[in-house]
Amino acid sequence: MDTQGNASSFSFSAPQDWALHAPLSAVPAAVNHRLNQYLSASLQEFWGINPLFTQAIEVMGDFIVGGGKRVRPTFAWAGIRAGLESSGTSTAKASSRSQEEPTELANGFLSAISAFEFIQACALIHDDIVDQSDTRRGHPTVHREFERHHRDRKWLGSSEHYGISQAILIGDLALAWADDLLLDSGLSTQRLHQCRHAWRAMRTEVIGGQILDIAVEASGTENVDHAWDVIKYKTASYTVARPLHVGAALAGASEELIEFLRTIGEDIGVAFQLRDDQLGVFGDPAVTGKPSGDDLRTGKRTVLIDSALEMGTEAQATQLREGLGNVTDEADVDELRSIIRDSGAAAHIETLITQKSERAIAHIHEAGLSKELTEELENYARRLTERSR
Amino acid sequence: MDTQGNASSFSFSAPQDWALHAPLSAVPAAVNHRLNQYLSASLQEFWGINPLFTQAIEVMGDFIVGGGKRVRPTFAWAGIRAGLESSGTSTAKASSRSQEEPTELANGFLSAISAFEFIQACALIHDDIVDQSDTRRGHPTVHREFERHHRDRKWLGSSEHYGISQAILIGDLALAWADDLLLDSGLSTQRLHQCRHAWRAMRTEVIGGQILDIAVEASGTENVDHAWDVIKYKTASYTVARPLHVGAALAGASEELIEFLRTIGEDIGVAFQLRDDQLGVFGDPAVTGKPSGDDLRTGKRTVLIDSALEMGTEAQATQLREGLGNVTDEADVDELRSIIRDSGAAAHIETLITQKSERAIAHIHEAGLSKELTEELENYARRLTERSR
Repeated sequence: MDTQGNASSFSFSAPQDWALHAPLSAVPAAVNHRLNQYLSASLQEFWGINPLFTQAIEVMGDFIVGGGKRVRPTFAWAGIRAGLESSGTSTAKASSRSQEEPTELANGFLSAISAFEFIQACALIHDDIVDQSDTRRGHPTVHREFERHHRDRKWLGSSEHYGISQAILIGDLALAWADDLLLDSGLSTQRLHQCRHAWRAMRTEVIGGQILDIAVEASGTENVDHAWDVIKYKTASYTVARPLHVGAALAGASEELIEFLRTIGEDIGVAFQLRDDQLGVFGDPAVTGKPSGDDLRTGKRTVLIDSALEMGTEAQATQLREGLGNVTDEADVDELRSIIRDSGAAAHIETLITQKSERAIAHIHEAGLSKELTEELENYARRLTERSR
Repeated sequence: MDTQGNASSFSFSAPQDWALHAPLSAVPAAVNHRLNQYLSASLQEFWGINPLFTQAIEVMGDFIVGGGKRVRPTFAWAGIRAGLESSGTSTAKASSRSQEEPTELANGFLSAISAFEFIQACALIHDDIVDQSDTRRGHPTVHREFERHHRDRKWLGSSEHYGISQAILIGDLALAWADDLLLDSGLSTQRLHQCRHAWRAMRTEVIGGQILDIAVEASGTENVDHAWDVIKYKTASYTVARPLHVGAALAGASEELIEFLRTIGEDIGVAFQLRDDQLGVFGDPAVTGKPSGDDLRTGKRTVLIDSALEMGTEAQATQLREGLGNVTDEADVDELRSIIRDSGAAAHIETLITQKSERAIAHIHEAGLSKELTEELENYARRLTERSR
């Protein structure tokens, strides 16, 4: 298909081991496979526009296939498998209601779950501009990469502004392609219709969560409710609950099962983010790959920090408030860590993580899923909430 | 519908005079009506996220309903009417093939053509960051508006960076909502499937054209082929050809009619942009609302400028090259204008405009459209390519 053509679906083949019963652990490799296929097809499709555009697509491609744990596709796949199990779809016969062939259906689902990674690419590329980050996953961020192109070629104007400009547009392209990969996945219009609400809500919630995060940060509010809203939309909903929802809806799950999975997802998502907040203060740099006390150095407002400000004595709160973002050495970091510990906030967050993840795991066991899926989902939830990085 | 709910279509009513035979001139008011409805519904739907998010949506809403000629919806509507005429759909009976009720169909089409304005909002909001523009349509640009919020509230950090950050995200939201408004328009899945290719190509082409534009500008290339590519994708395709294509495809037009309409659209689109380039150099500020010789002041590379550099003598080219972007007063502007005239480029572009628009108009008369639509489309094409602003 070229830019003049009229075809609008893709004929990709899934990896050999990809099937409706594929384990959660198979998701990252399969998703990488599909993303590579999609990027190659898109490069061919839009090759004609101009070589300068092709180069920009290549930068996006390198970013997308260059790393990432594929958390959202993994939860979406868990949702799909849960939905298929609940609707009595065996892995040999795709659907009792339709003519869908299992291999094709598994293939279509793979495109749908891979689409999350384009949303994520847009979110990260734009976040890195907002956070003025230089590196991501050990590579230069996209805006820095374009900045370098500009500088290397001795082009006109500000290299920095050029980098930001192109990174804004590359993020836009990723966002548009997310919808394209989902809608041209080859899944039936009925399945696509079933996931409309979840997909729509997910996109608005992640952007809304990010808008909120920036406003909360800039306002300097210590109201922990705002920090909870950021966690809810930017992480819990976007990273876990909605991917489960989208997957389950695509597979035709009942409203009841969807609600149950979303509740599980909210708990895992919140625990996942709280763990991240703990690591941002107490994490071992050798393990996290980030500077020691990273959130203390950047002065980031998290539920952990806001809780410490709320729970600590007035003297502790003042010292913490003044120290945030003004840390110069390891001794400063240690001092702020002590305050957060002494305020009771660290233990409080740890308790919340345990409560939420244990509740989620109990619910996973009550969801009527197969033994295999129950076990895989429990392990995955534990891995994310107990992780040390 | 709240963020927890599962409904995913809207029940909007169109303005009373909106119907399948509504004239092109009725489009702007009807689109504004639908945009207002959609924004209100979305505000209600996502009210629960957080008041800070609601405020951000309001900034986007003010921008979207605050102005614009609604060119893309108008061409999309022309495409729909052409498609309906060609498929023998009378305005009393929506479709011979289906059960669609004409009022509902007209209503669904209105959402679909309004969706273009969300794409356009994203394009303009992000363009204004790229171009570092302070005003648009007589109001502060979105990033400047958020910058002002930040400054007025004496928030932390850089007001300028805050403005840019929020404007990036608000543009993302507009891009996501464009797909939502189209997909939840209530149009049949068959109609939506028919426009997939055109919609997909349009989104990638406008972003690609913009990426290209920035790269061409920064590289300082005087290769007029690049400037033609920018016109082709950023304007001709995005503003005219693809809207006609999307509309015609939604209405079930034949491949043949679609190709014919796209050819017409490319010609109108190119003539429209070349007229813009002429006005950017020779336009009367009292009429255009922009500074005299705006493109000479900013040093923008257009087909007109690149043609003058190519067609002029070496001395003329050198003087023009040095003057671009270095204009300080009206005398400088006049001098560069003379060079562009003397090089023959201005007359050359004027000839191209006439050729393209006359060819488009001849084709409009050969497209087998009704007398009414032929006349309306001809008038609209003339208005855009002969306009003085």
